[in-house]
Amino acid sequence: MSESVSRLAPASFPDIPPIAGVQLATYAAGIKYESRPDLFLASLAEGTSVAAAFTSSKCPSAPVEWCRRILNQGNRTARALVCNSGNANAFTGAAGTASATLTAEVVARSLGVDAERVFLASTGVIGEPLPDDILSDSLPALVDNLGVASAEAWVEAAGAICTTDTFSKGSAARINSTAAHIAGIAKGSGMIAPDMATMLAFVFTDLAVAPEILQSCLSTSVAASFNCITVDSDTSTSDTVLLFATGEQIDDEISSPTDSRLDEFQGALDSVLLDLAHQVVRDGEGATKFVQVTVTGAESDESAHNIARSIAESPLVSTALAAEDANWGRIVMAVGKAGERADRDRLSIWIGDELVAAGGAQHRDYSEPRATQHLKQDEIELRVDVGIGTGAATVWTCDLTHGYIEINAGYRS
Amino acid sequence: MSESVSRLAPASFPDIPPIAGVQLATYAAGIKYESRPDLFLASLAEGTSVAAAFTSSKCPSAPVEWCRRILNQGNRTARALVCNSGNANAFTGAAGTASATLTAEVVARSLGVDAERVFLASTGVIGEPLPDDILSDSLPALVDNLGVASAEAWVEAAGAICTTDTFSKGSAARINSTAAHIAGIAKGSGMIAPDMATMLAFVFTDLAVAPEILQSCLSTSVAASFNCITVDSDTSTSDTVLLFATGEQIDDEISSPTDSRLDEFQGALDSVLLDLAHQVVRDGEGATKFVQVTVTGAESDESAHNIARSIAESPLVSTALAAEDANWGRIVMAVGKAGERADRDRLSIWIGDELVAAGGAQHRDYSEPRATQHLKQDEIELRVDVGIGTGAATVWTCDLTHGYIEINAGYRS
Repeated sequence: MSESVSRLAPASFPDIPPIAGVQLATYAAGIKYESRPDLFLASLAEGTSVAAAFTSSKCPSAPVEWCRRILNQGNRTARALVCNSGNANAFTGAAGTASATLTAEVVARSLGVDAERVFLASTGVIGEPLPDDILSDSLPALVDNLGVASAEAWVEAAGAICTTDTFSKGSAARINSTAAHIAGIAKGSGMIAPDMATMLAFVFTDLAVAPEILQSCLSTSVAASFNCITVDSDTSTSDTVLLFATGEQIDDEISSPTDSRLDEFQGALDSVLLDLAHQVVRDGEGATKFVQVTVTGAESDESAHNIARSIAESPLVSTALAAEDANWGRIVMAVGKAGERADRDRLSIWIGDELVAAGGAQHRDYSEPRATQHLKQDEIELRVDVGIGTGAATVWTCDLTHGYIEINAGYRS
Repeated sequence: MSESVSRLAPASFPDIPPIAGVQLATYAAGIKYESRPDLFLASLAEGTSVAAAFTSSKCPSAPVEWCRRILNQGNRTARALVCNSGNANAFTGAAGTASATLTAEVVARSLGVDAERVFLASTGVIGEPLPDDILSDSLPALVDNLGVASAEAWVEAAGAICTTDTFSKGSAARINSTAAHIAGIAKGSGMIAPDMATMLAFVFTDLAVAPEILQSCLSTSVAASFNCITVDSDTSTSDTVLLFATGEQIDDEISSPTDSRLDEFQGALDSVLLDLAHQVVRDGEGATKFVQVTVTGAESDESAHNIARSIAESPLVSTALAAEDANWGRIVMAVGKAGERADRDRLSIWIGDELVAAGGAQHRDYSEPRATQHLKQDEIELRVDVGIGTGAATVWTCDLTHGYIEINAGYRS
């Protein structure tokens, strides 16, 4: 992790509760980073359900392919999750596939479980082979470190999966009417774009949820969280969200879409995933502003999402925000380039609460000093009403600064 | 224009020949810039054919709407072109439409032509009204300045249409077997993306070409030039390419698609437009590298274009190029995120002549020092063979540097 913590970081890492049926371990293997943990293991109780979402990249990493393969075999239960940071094991050919298999097999053997129940994720440099000798030596030691999922263990786990992140990311929620919880950790700060990001998130609950229901809940939450954030419009080879339900706290399984507990679970899951997604944006490489872009009045929700994304991903908008410059013409430009139905003369634009433009021109009461005042804050809201329908969407992003260039022209990610 | 000229600029402005039937004028109206010409006028001989290509923005500027309207009336001849820099007359509502109409009418009256034969373009700040009083005073003076299209007049014209450009852009070609020429000027350095850019190009020939043939030639040339460049993936409200054929040098009109002179004209037009498009990339805001991205072996030409564009527009690729870092993993990432059919294990990647990766992994003979050596040059070639078809495309871009942030977090464009 970087020395200097993002100014947009939360004040502290949350106090994450233990999740029954989950044990955690970290280990400093020295794959790339020196003297910090770079391996993370979660051991999961028998019968744990799993749900997943992966990168849309056509050149996915070996761990993504491994997870897809074991899921495609119809396997919907998990016994372990292994993640390394520092090397993405992406574009590493047959050697990469072998390293992924080796990792799953060594951990499976040490835990006495089936290798096809071991899920994998890797993040870091693309194109360099994973050092198999280091893995072979380190993985048994990692397994030896397994212990209770204490608050300290969550902190260490969240740190072990980081790369260019400037702070560790965690979130938790209680499922109110039960004794069960949801806990999650994530990493990511660049190569972040909708349809996932160089972004890993691992989420655990001790509620029992049938795999198909769990997958449906995860897909719903991801659509409104990780798929609504963007830092630089780049999409990683390695993006992975995994959700595990151990059922060790509440083993009366939710197996019907009409189960009355489902709304509460979905709500808690949504809050954890959105919190983690926002933390990823808050750690956007070089970010100095956390930006919420809301589009209403579009032809459809999808159209609203595309317009919001066009604004959020525009380098010209992002650089203006970095400069606290109320250059709303660039927002018009970004609406125009989205390719979605829009009518210049029906468009309204707000910066914070300040109505900037309406009816195809600058609003007569617009005050640039008031708009600039809003832009001086760390948290910025941009709003566009397209004025032609009822479609709405919100996307979160950060500004584009010298810091982004500094990090990415230097670090080899 | 900026004080400091791009290091990628051509050594000098070309010696552009006069085009029979074209007279030029510039004038310093002080719309935004002080003490430099910001108005440009080309007066065109009676019977001049016109062809056009405009921004795909859904929020186009008033001048773009004006041009579209007069073309949609079936008008395919032109008597004048007026362009101002410093104010885009975009998102200016009814006032903007009125300013465009005023401009056309004042110039038409001074020249004694029909206002519907006057084409318009504006570039600069979005959302600020054009000062009508300045226009009313300055446009007759602009007309008074009309004179022969000498080499010096082309230099002044190319300068008058610039905004953040660091050098003026011009190009010319002789249509070999005739006494006719093609001459063009362009502006643009940011908000540049395929399907046009904040990019204006005005091209003139004294060959006689029927409007429908002229439009077909222009569309062909634009597809292989301005639609294949990208600086920052942002698309302007104001992009305009206009091509005028006066017929004053060779008045035996090309009016059939099988005319034997057409190949030669198309070739000359292609070379002028590609030269102008490359100059726009060479003036990319903050650019230190001119980058050619070629994709072969894709499923189709369109697929190849999308992959090339994904590589060219990736901020992570662009920052690595700025750092002269042979971080080819980011090229894999960009191929993957393009969403086009690709097979990791059939992909080959070259940096210059150095084969970097093939068969799903780094190539055994790959030398990072040789790749880095190539990246130290001002002109960089990246090549990807997808290995699954015969589709091919080339896109040009520049690197992403601190200079881009500097310019766009400062200048209000």
